[in-house]
Parts: sequence; C-alpha cells; structure tokens
Amino acid sequence: MREHIKAALIGAGTIGTGVLKTLSMNAHIIKKRLGIPLEVKWVCDIDLEREREVDLSQYLTTRDFREAVEDPEVDMVVELVGGVHPAKEMVLFALERGKHVVTANKALLAEEGEEIFRKAAEMGLDLGFEASVAGGIPIIKALREGLCANEIEAIYGIINGTANYVLTRMEEEGISFRQALEMAQKKGYAEADPTLDIEGIDAAHKAAILATLCFGSTFTLSDVYVEGITRVESIDVAFARDLGYKVKLLAILKRAKDEVEIRVHPTLIPVSSSLAAVRGAYNALSVVGNAVGHTMFYGMGAGMMPTASAVVADMMDIARNILANSPARVPPLAYREGERLKPRPVEEIESKYYLRFSAIDKPGVLSRIAGILGQHNISIESVIQKGRRESGFVPIVMTTHEAKEKMMKRAVQEIDALDITGERTVLIRIENNLNRIS
Amino acid sequence: MREHIKAALIGAGTIGTGVLKTLSMNAHIIKKRLGIPLEVKWVCDIDLEREREVDLSQYLTTRDFREAVEDPEVDMVVELVGGVHPAKEMVLFALERGKHVVTANKALLAEEGEEIFRKAAEMGLDLGFEASVAGGIPIIKALREGLCANEIEAIYGIINGTANYVLTRMEEEGISFRQALEMAQKKGYAEADPTLDIEGIDAAHKAAILATLCFGSTFTLSDVYVEGITRVESIDVAFARDLGYKVKLLAILKRAKDEVEIRVHPTLIPVSSSLAAVRGAYNALSVVGNAVGHTMFYGMGAGMMPTASAVVADMMDIARNILANSPARVPPLAYREGERLKPRPVEEIESKYYLRFSAIDKPGVLSRIAGILGQHNISIESVIQKGRRESGFVPIVMTTHEAKEKMMKRAVQEIDALDITGERTVLIRIENNLNRIS
Repeated sequence: MREHIKAALIGAGTIGTGVLKTLSMNAHIIKKRLGIPLEVKWVCDIDLEREREVDLSQYLTTRDFREAVEDPEVDMVVELVGGVHPAKEMVLFALERGKHVVTANKALLAEEGEEIFRKAAEMGLDLGFEASVAGGIPIIKALREGLCANEIEAIYGIINGTANYVLTRMEEEGISFRQALEMAQKKGYAEADPTLDIEGIDAAHKAAILATLCFGSTFTLSDVYVEGITRVESIDVAFARDLGYKVKLLAILKRAKDEVEIRVHPTLIPVSSSLAAVRGAYNALSVVGNAVGHTMFYGMGAGMMPTASAVVADMMDIARNILANSPARVPPLAYREGERLKPRPVEEIESKYYLRFSAIDKPGVLSRIAGILGQHNISIESVIQKGRRESGFVPIVMTTHEAKEKMMKRAVQEIDALDITGERTVLIRIENNLNRIS
Repeated sequence: MREHIKAALIGAGTIGTGVLKTLSMNAHIIKKRLGIPLEVKWVCDIDLEREREVDLSQYLTTRDFREAVEDPEVDMVVELVGGVHPAKEMVLFALERGKHVVTANKALLAEEGEEIFRKAAEMGLDLGFEASVAGGIPIIKALREGLCANEIEAIYGIINGTANYVLTRMEEEGISFRQALEMAQKKGYAEADPTLDIEGIDAAHKAAILATLCFGSTFTLSDVYVEGITRVESIDVAFARDLGYKVKLLAILKRAKDEVEIRVHPTLIPVSSSLAAVRGAYNALSVVGNAVGHTMFYGMGAGMMPTASAVVADMMDIARNILANSPARVPPLAYREGERLKPRPVEEIESKYYLRFSAIDKPGVLSRIAGILGQHNISIESVIQKGRRESGFVPIVMTTHEAKEKMMKRAVQEIDALDITGERTVLIRIENNLNRIS
C-alpha cells in the first residue's frame, strides 16, 4: 500500500493558488476519502516571488517544469499555465514521462486536444479536464459517467460568465453593451482585454470539448459556429423582453442523425425557461438525454475556489485509479472508439429567428419585407412596429417560425438592398426547446 | 479480454422495464463507451406473464432469484424489487456470492444500509445506488466524485416529486391539500396510498442516504426529523406568497461543527431562490461545498426512463471496474473510514419561523402574543393582521428572526393555552440561506 500520492503543480496563478488552498483546507476530508494523503510536492512558476495567499515555502519550487515532472515521486502533473503554448509541450512532456495529467486549459484541448488525447491513450494514462468547462460544475463527470447510459440529444449552455454578466446588466439596467462591459471590468468579471469572452471564443472552446464528450469524436474550435455579443444592442434586449424572451450567449449542441450542430451565439430564450433565470457570473448547462430527459447543472463557472474544486476532484479521481491500479479506467473522451459525426454548416441549420429591420415609416413597407420573406419560404410569427417618426427610419421587429438559415440570409440580403431600408437587419436566433420552469 | 458483462435483473416492474428498454435502445452507445456489450441475462419476477413494454422472451426468466444470482456468468445483480424485505435478503445473498449490486431501493438503504454497506466492503464489491435519490439526476456521482474535493456544508433538496406537485398545484391554483392530492392521483403523480410521499418518509429516506454520503458515517431514517405536507393549508400558502415565499417540502442537511442537522419539513423559501422555481414533479438539489460554493442539480426525480438512466449508469460504472479490475475503487460511502457525527435534535436547531396564530380580534391581543415571544427571546420580523370580523377568531401571521426551536415551541405552547387564542398555532420554518436567481 502506498503512503501518499504526489503531484507537481505547473502555474501558480489564481487557480493554482486555489488548488493549494483547497488541498490544505480539506486535507482531512481528502485523506478520509482516499485513505492516504494527496500532496503537492513541486510548485513550478516563472514568478516564485510574487505575493500569494499561500506560502510556497512548504513546497519544493522551481522555474523549470522538467525538474518537477521528472521527479520519480511525482504521480501526476497539474497544468494551470493556460494558453496553447507552452502548455501543450508541458502536457506532452508529462505524458511521455508516464505522468497522469490534470488540466483546466480549454484553449489547449479545443485546439490541440486530438494529439493530447491520443498521447494519453497511447500511454495508458489519465487526463482530467473537469475544470476546463463550467468551473466548479461537475459537468464532465456527469457526461462521462453520470449520464453515460444516455445518447445525449442536446446541450444548451450558459458557459461564459463574463458574457452572461454583461447581458444580465444590459437587461436589468437597460444600459448599452459598452456600459455593461465597463461595469464587468470594474467588478473584475471581465479582463482588461475581454476579447475571448465577448467574442464567444471562450464559450466555443468549451462547446468543442462538450461536443467531443457527447458525440464520440474530437471536435475543435473550427467546428464551432461562433458569434459574440458585441453587436447585441439594448433596443434588441428591450424588444426581446416585450416578446417574452431574454438574450443569452448560448452554446447549442444538437445531434441530428449523422450530423451535429455546435454553435455559440446570442440567442433569444423564453423568460420562462430554467436557463433564463441564470444571472450574472453563474453558469448552467441543460443536458437532454434520450433516457433521462431534461436535466440542469448550475454553479459558479469561474473563480479561484470553484475551479479549484474541479481540479482537485480530477486529482482525486486519478489518485483513486492509482490506488486501484486502474489507470485510464474511463477513457478521456468516455468512448473507446471514434466515429466521426460531421459538424453541420450553419447555413444548413433550421431555427426560429428574431429580426429587426430598419425601414422607412411609410405604407407598403411592411408588405414588401413580408413579401420577400414569403418568397424564401419564411413564415412570420409576430410583428412589432413602433412608429417613431422623428428619424427617417423606424424599427420593425419580427419573429419567424422555423426556417432554413440559408434562406433567411438570402432574404435578409435582399431586404437590406431595398431603398426603403436603412441599417443592416439585426438577426438573432431563437431557441424555444428548453426546459420551462413556469 | 472479456467479451461481455452480464447482469441479472430482479424485479421487472416499471423501473425494471425501463432498464431493459434503455439497455437495448442505447446498446450501441453503451458498447462504444465500455468497449464490450453490457447485457441482461436473467430477468426474475414473481409475475412473468404480465403485459410489459419489453418482450421478456429474449432473456432467461425465473421466479427464483437464487437461480439467476448463482449463474456463474452473472457479474452483477440489479435489485428493483423495492421495500425492505425481501429486497435485503436478495441483496445480501448476491453480495455473499460475490456479485456486485445495483439498487434503486431508498427504503432499504435508509433503514438497513449499514449492514449492506459493510457486507459490500467486506467482500470488496461495488454497490451502486444512484437511482435511490432524485431519479435521473446524477447526484450520488456528484457527491462521491464530482464534488469530492469539498467539505459539504449544506444540501437543500426538493427530492419528492409527488409532494412538490401537490404544493405547486396548491400554490398556483389556490386549492386545498386534498384537492391537489386528488389531482396528483388522477395524473399518476401520486399513488393510491400516498402516505410515504406526503408524510415526508420517502424524502427522509433519501435525506438519510445523502447525509451518509456527505457526513461520512451511516445515518438512518430515525436520524431524520420528518414532518409531511398534510397539514399545509391554502391560507398559509397564500400568506407565504404575500411575504415573498413559497412553501416547499425541503430536505435540509447542514453541518455544524461535530453535529449535523438532517430534516425534512414544509419550509418557506424565498420566491427569488433557484429552488422556488422547481415546479411539479421535478427534483432539484442545491449543494453547498466549502470550495465550489453554491451548485444546483435539476431533473426528473422519478419515472421509468429517468430512473433507468441512473440504474444503467451504475451498471456501466461497475462494468468499467470489472474491465479495469478495480472493484470498489470508490467505496460506496465515498469514505474509507467512519467518524460519527451526531444528528442534532430538532429542539436544538435555530431557524427563522412563520407563525399563524388564531386569535380573538380585540385590542391588546397582539401585545400579549408578542410579549410571550419576547420572554422566550424570540424577536419578530414582520406581522400581518387581516381583520375578518365575521368569525370569532382572526389569523395573525408573523415571521421571526433566528430563534431556538426549543424556545419557539415553549412560547407557542404558552400562547396556545391563552383564552384569547383558538386553533393551534401553525408553525413553518423559513430557510433564507439559499442561492438566489433574482
């Protein structure tokens, strides 16, 4: 029987500090669960002097990750560096030396996952990545194990806390995107450079990882259709509310025969849906399985301690495999073999749509717009026309029934070319197939 | 390498039928995940002739569970008989013969769990019971593994769909408990004899299992303080709404130093809390961990297919252990050793309270009631007094700040003995420490 499990931590930033805090704060409970202690032996960072909430002097420290990884006492390597390089090289180095790996790095897995998953499988090693999606919510565990008896039919996820915070502020305070983003930055919910969050890239990274887990082969960022929230205007948030919807940055995964839809974009969702109630920096995923039906998982999607909860859970999972001598008991992707489902191009999807036209306030305008939609086989569900005669153009808002994206884009192009329309038409997809709470 | 994993199913009722349906409907995905097929070889039931959604002729069938369990090809036994006896004897028989066990039987585990868990540990066998709490929601997996890095500080759960359906109907339609219960029976959400559900016993069984998982030693039904919903009146549901609350049958687990609170009772929870949005037959559990913070798990808490999803997930978990040769990799209780936390007697808890007094509509009455509360160190938060002079008595509704249950009960006893009060005072505990969605 072993006396302890030892880890090397690479990257002692916010999450790394949270991992060290969690391991010491909950050492007694972790030991009770595993039977033996789980300890960090090495901490590796380029800056070892910086002020941290944790005293690093109790660990061996190094600036050279190789020194830590190559220590024969080290069972697993926890990569919390972030970004694709040099994180990829660090993870591969660890796997090649027979060390299990835990990572919170969504960019790495969404962009270079295939090579990393293959290397882990080849070496018969575990690769934990619970913290890469939705922070503290154990959604990876749920998909790989808890719901493994299901064919996953769809996932609808609010998986970027920054974007959700910004949209929540816009909706509740009627402020603009810019104002809401500034607020998020002041409160520490958005970084100085918020591009990855507000352009939907971060959510798309996570969507690619979720798709890989649900659909049994590797999907990358390039398989995900992405639109960010930078063009969401407060007028659309207000119209959406009038129509009974909220605007959310939604990750949507759907299985459709041998194709899959993987997309991240601003979406109108019914105010009565469970997901509409998810405010601020919280994350939530609604998972639809063919046996279990609708389920939802909710919690903090980021932050030092919630993310550390996920990292340490992975470390304990690996420790349990070490103790039971069952490495790679559950393969990283939860599937033993690949079968490649094709990502459906966004032009081929069908959706309901919210459209806001900018048009001259004259008789006959609505009928010309409706006529073009009709020619493209798009039927209208509702129209709101609020005449505001001060300016030359007024907004005309429509919701449609299910239509093909391809036809919709053609119709909008034709409409935007008319002499009676002004600014480009705003198009936001509507998702109605969500679990309702009221 | 093995070619298949085989199971014996004991009890082919609703859930058993769902398990057979799930295994065949999702056979391809289960094989992809495990690498080899997972098959039911034996189906055992006392009634093999009854019409079922599944054709039993593809399985070996027997009325004698011993015949199925003793088949050397059988790796695991799935007990779906329900009730304490003879389910207990069947489970022990299977464990003694070296078979892993999956059960959905909350009564069995909450009443005889200690002996069963001990036998499984002794034999080095797995015991899966995901389906025993909250149906399709993978909450056992989350507590044993997904959130294992946390000290669990509290769980607040809506874990009985029947009771929640009845309370939802009372609240939304303003009908009485009796009327709502009849409605639930008509819709198939309540059984002909609904005692276990409406008296809170079923929720208390599940609370005992959750406590056992969270607090690291075995708790039984007798450790749970239980009040059902039979005495919830529509007038209290209405007053609660005026005060900004909904009435829910809540399971509450709290850790407090070396004691734990485990209770199930009607509870006023803020309308703005995530749990207040859980309607009808859905279940939800809010789990508070000392690293992860607030999380919530939501889904169908009962029904053929959601429950089957949980049973088959357990079967696959065991199959993965068989394939990796790592039986009992995670001990059933998720802890390797016991440490007995004492259940706190309900008299010792502190809570906020909703009180409805029935009192004569005369000057000075309120001050006498308030006086007695004050003498017992109970401070009042709000009072609603709606004079209705037709009858001799009027309702006086109060909410209090945190107070000791012991003092509260003494005060209410004194008040009920006054000549100015009529019917017994209604007392409902208030829980405010919940995650808010608005």
